[in-house]
Amino acid sequence: MELKLIEQIKRTCEKLDRENLYEFIVKGIGDDCAELASPSGRNLIITTDTMVEGTHFRLSYFPPEFLARKLISVNVSDIAAMGGMPFAALLNLEVPSQLKDLDSPFWEEFKKGLLSQLTNFGIRLIGGDTVSLKDRRLGLTLTLLGFIEKERAIYRSGAKEGDYIYVSGYVGEAGAGLKILENRSYKRHLLPRPVKRHLILRYLDPTPRLKLGRLLSGLGVNAMIDVSDGMSTDLSHIARESGLCARIFAKDIPISRPLLLFSKMTKKSALDLALFSGEDFELMWTISPEQAREMEKRAAKVIGRRPFFIGKMERGEGVVLERDGKEMDITFKGYEH
Amino acid sequence: MELKLIEQIKRTCEKLDRENLYEFIVKGIGDDCAELASPSGRNLIITTDTMVEGTHFRLSYFPPEFLARKLISVNVSDIAAMGGMPFAALLNLEVPSQLKDLDSPFWEEFKKGLLSQLTNFGIRLIGGDTVSLKDRRLGLTLTLLGFIEKERAIYRSGAKEGDYIYVSGYVGEAGAGLKILENRSYKRHLLPRPVKRHLILRYLDPTPRLKLGRLLSGLGVNAMIDVSDGMSTDLSHIARESGLCARIFAKDIPISRPLLLFSKMTKKSALDLALFSGEDFELMWTISPEQAREMEKRAAKVIGRRPFFIGKMERGEGVVLERDGKEMDITFKGYEH
Repeated sequence: MELKLIEQIKRTCEKLDRENLYEFIVKGIGDDCAELASPSGRNLIITTDTMVEGTHFRLSYFPPEFLARKLISVNVSDIAAMGGMPFAALLNLEVPSQLKDLDSPFWEEFKKGLLSQLTNFGIRLIGGDTVSLKDRRLGLTLTLLGFIEKERAIYRSGAKEGDYIYVSGYVGEAGAGLKILENRSYKRHLLPRPVKRHLILRYLDPTPRLKLGRLLSGLGVNAMIDVSDGMSTDLSHIARESGLCARIFAKDIPISRPLLLFSKMTKKSALDLALFSGEDFELMWTISPEQAREMEKRAAKVIGRRPFFIGKMERGEGVVLERDGKEMDITFKGYEH
Repeated sequence: MELKLIEQIKRTCEKLDRENLYEFIVKGIGDDCAELASPSGRNLIITTDTMVEGTHFRLSYFPPEFLARKLISVNVSDIAAMGGMPFAALLNLEVPSQLKDLDSPFWEEFKKGLLSQLTNFGIRLIGGDTVSLKDRRLGLTLTLLGFIEKERAIYRSGAKEGDYIYVSGYVGEAGAGLKILENRSYKRHLLPRPVKRHLILRYLDPTPRLKLGRLLSGLGVNAMIDVSDGMSTDLSHIARESGLCARIFAKDIPISRPLLLFSKMTKKSALDLALFSGEDFELMWTISPEQAREMEKRAAKVIGRRPFFIGKMERGEGVVLERDGKEMDITFKGYEH
């Protein structure tokens, strides 16, 4: 959920809130999902994301099947970052004239991707809206509903001083994949085909960490977010919402072999990609040092390896990168679509 | 909620349904809202609508304040047509480059309209997404959450043979207003200024029948829908979903004095506008003859006059218009954006 204008309106809505009209809204704007109280043991959570051709993707390199899968994945990732489970979705399609034949191969592939991903995650499509455009680009909005057990949702605002910061996997790979797709000259480099394929697929077909998010929400994790806008920007949200500073260590940022190869071939900094490019859809969370060891063990069983320790929460504000004994403020330095 | 492609996916999702994974989904795709069961006495309902510049509106005549109000109204109308109450919304904005300054007068007015309408209906904005576009038109999506008491939602599918059909107010006025806005020559006609203003406002700033919908959902109404795509099309949904035929009488279709004046000045058929143009956002419902009189009285107290009887549900299919002793099939003849 991206904000700006929407955040301005939040304030007025908060005034309404004090009149107690909305006691069932547990969490409004400003986290991965909104959360609504339910009289049952489970609360409802809801998130929405819009993807627009030309801004978020190009049809020249994005197979429709993957486009549908990713639209679902990015929203599932928001649900995962709260610790919840998705169950129902609404789909809004803005269809440009050149795609108006809904029986064309494009839409057949799109449907295939949509159905496979809905099935993967146990999500049912319950509504939506289709609008035909005369001369515009394809626009896709998915709104995803999920549930979370009462008092178990992990917010961005919950980090505590002294918490360790973790990330679930390698970062920067999706950013490298996008660069390969956007820049034809990279393709001509001597990057081995499997490496290229791996990086591109990390961008086109990310895997949201749903199982891990569920596990972590029961393990005393204090704050959590998914890496969508870049590790630096996303960590800035945790720091700001929690009123603390996030200090991370360059030597601990997980950089994969494929990303290192890409970096070597293209002279792009692997660390910059890891910190500032987005869309890896790994989870990032904070937890007290006492609970960290047990969490590492349990998480390893779900993701196949230990999550990466990358830093600590401390008094102060913003995000600080420590590298070779030097400090750098990288607060809200990130990837812009 | 508009469908087509989305409806095709429904079938596969219904297969999932039979595996009982989704016992909390009471109503999926195919009504004004989707409905989710809750363990409390109230179920959750949800609807979404997308409005795109060039397809649904032109900024040349649509004041931003009214645009925001209408975006909310059309969704509130869907909640009203189920008999429910709205309480929370998510807003997705696709912002073209010429509107990217979010402090501009355009967005100030938009926010003003948004806040006034959110407050009117007791709705809190809980989330959303903003995306910046390079060269596209403004796109707006609102997703609205509401509640409805268990077993009290009115579906399109509930009409019974012999039911009377009612509409809550004059139809065709919004369509006439749009024609005035779209066609400069109409403005030059001798249409009195207050009449012109009335018709234009019916299009720009419709009033969803929320109170009436709430009342009707407690009065034994069998089926209900709002008039968004045109009376003929919307009634076709009730007929199809209920497996019956809707027979309406031309002489009973409510046509206002302003619409008659417009019709006289422009030589456009007032009846055609009433039947086939949309966006009046009146409610249309069916009820047994035995309960009709009591309902008329109670409804009159809410809307200031008796609702209009327009026809009957009978065996068969589609929508039949009876006029001067002749019959005409007008199934799914309607207004296309």
